[in-house]
Amino acid sequence: MASTLGELTVRSGRVKRAKRLATRSFREESGEFLAEGPQAVREALVEGLARDVFATPEAYERHNDLPPLDTGDAEWHLVDEEILTHIADAVHPQGIVARCVQVRHELDVVLAYAPQLIVVCADIRDPGNAGSVIRAADATGADAVIFTGDSVDPWNPKAVRASVGSLFHVPVVIERDILTALAAANAAGLQVLAADGAGDVGLFDAKLDVPTAWLMGNEAWGLPEETRALADSVVSIPIYGRAESLNLATAATLCLYTSAQAQR
Amino acid sequence: MASTLGELTVRSGRVKRAKRLATRSFREESGEFLAEGPQAVREALVEGLARDVFATPEAYERHNDLPPLDTGDAEWHLVDEEILTHIADAVHPQGIVARCVQVRHELDVVLAYAPQLIVVCADIRDPGNAGSVIRAADATGADAVIFTGDSVDPWNPKAVRASVGSLFHVPVVIERDILTALAAANAAGLQVLAADGAGDVGLFDAKLDVPTAWLMGNEAWGLPEETRALADSVVSIPIYGRAESLNLATAATLCLYTSAQAQR
Repeated sequence: MASTLGELTVRSGRVKRAKRLATRSFREESGEFLAEGPQAVREALVEGLARDVFATPEAYERHNDLPPLDTGDAEWHLVDEEILTHIADAVHPQGIVARCVQVRHELDVVLAYAPQLIVVCADIRDPGNAGSVIRAADATGADAVIFTGDSVDPWNPKAVRASVGSLFHVPVVIERDILTALAAANAAGLQVLAADGAGDVGLFDAKLDVPTAWLMGNEAWGLPEETRALADSVVSIPIYGRAESLNLATAATLCLYTSAQAQR
Repeated sequence: MASTLGELTVRSGRVKRAKRLATRSFREESGEFLAEGPQAVREALVEGLARDVFATPEAYERHNDLPPLDTGDAEWHLVDEEILTHIADAVHPQGIVARCVQVRHELDVVLAYAPQLIVVCADIRDPGNAGSVIRAADATGADAVIFTGDSVDPWNPKAVRASVGSLFHVPVVIERDILTALAAANAAGLQVLAADGAGDVGLFDAKLDVPTAWLMGNEAWGLPEETRALADSVVSIPIYGRAESLNLATAATLCLYTSAQAQR
């Protein structure tokens, strides 16, 4: 809608507000987050979620597929490199960041629409993994990603970057209580499969042609016994060589693709 | 064999030699590399590849599954935190690093043993991806990973870390000329499948129950036309949702697992 050039400083209210989105507490309080780089900002604009867009004139010129300054609901601010770096979490935000509103989905609403494939993250701590799981969910056409327990904030800047735009495509739900999440998934007719290195069933032998919720545990300690006990099966990805394990995001991608294939 | 405590300084020859392994040119010249952290050092010791092990007394105590100081071929050096940080590439090497010799496999030797599944990396640039591809090859029991063109050095410290020990399990070959690598793979009876977002065949429809070389291209530009033309098929991983793509390591893992399953 509007654009400003050279009016903002690091002390301006808008700049301060964007910068505060680096902290989880302010993201939760405000219900906002920061999208960094041309791809994420473009997605945010397409989805109508961007409120303030900060770009250097050079970046604005370079990414000539960005919408014109005078269109859309977002307010554009042409700023210098110093302000941009001050706001951004990324070392190289490619000259553009946007303050965006979060779309927080509700568990019961997501489950009301007969989902076929969802992911439940239990205590996932690494933001890169969170973003990569969202990207994998998007690639496989999954219906939602649910973050439970003390999982990392999926609107963390590193998670947003790792999702490579998929955070704007896949419904994300925050439900602290894992018992609530799994009971609701079960009640909605989804089988719950826990992904764990020490599973009873191999991934390629599991029954996957039914609606499924994949339960992924913490990077270091996996799933506690009481959480595993809530799953219908514990499924492991076979290791044919001598590798100790796969990383969480890779494991999630394999589980989701194998499910998506079986369901088709 | 031997151990020293407190004798080394940042100016000692051994310390300097280990530190120089941060540069590719010295890794290539010396045929050595640096393993960082207790897991990698343990693998290096098991495989008989460690020459100098540098550990803080605290780290040595903490990782009590390390072999006793007076056994093995490696020379142990108990050093202070300052020297360890000076040598290491990682911010947190967990108090232990080792100077190790590279095992460089030859293309013709690897191909002489009727391999069923190999990966050919063409101009892969990110060390994390290189290590993750090696890890995926290990998990799927693949026979070798071949780095061609201007690919990153698989003995780069970040690649070693990302392989999570798998660099010690899977034969790694450096063959600059991609034409040579693909012609040799073909002559050894392997079909060459190029993984590419714009493929002619979907991964789950491809014929995979025969010996296969997976060809993976650069992170940014994929495979140049003349390289794609050398493949028997160009295969793409179906995207069911709105994700733009998968990252290279994830794509490689999916291709390798789908092949390994089909071959069993």
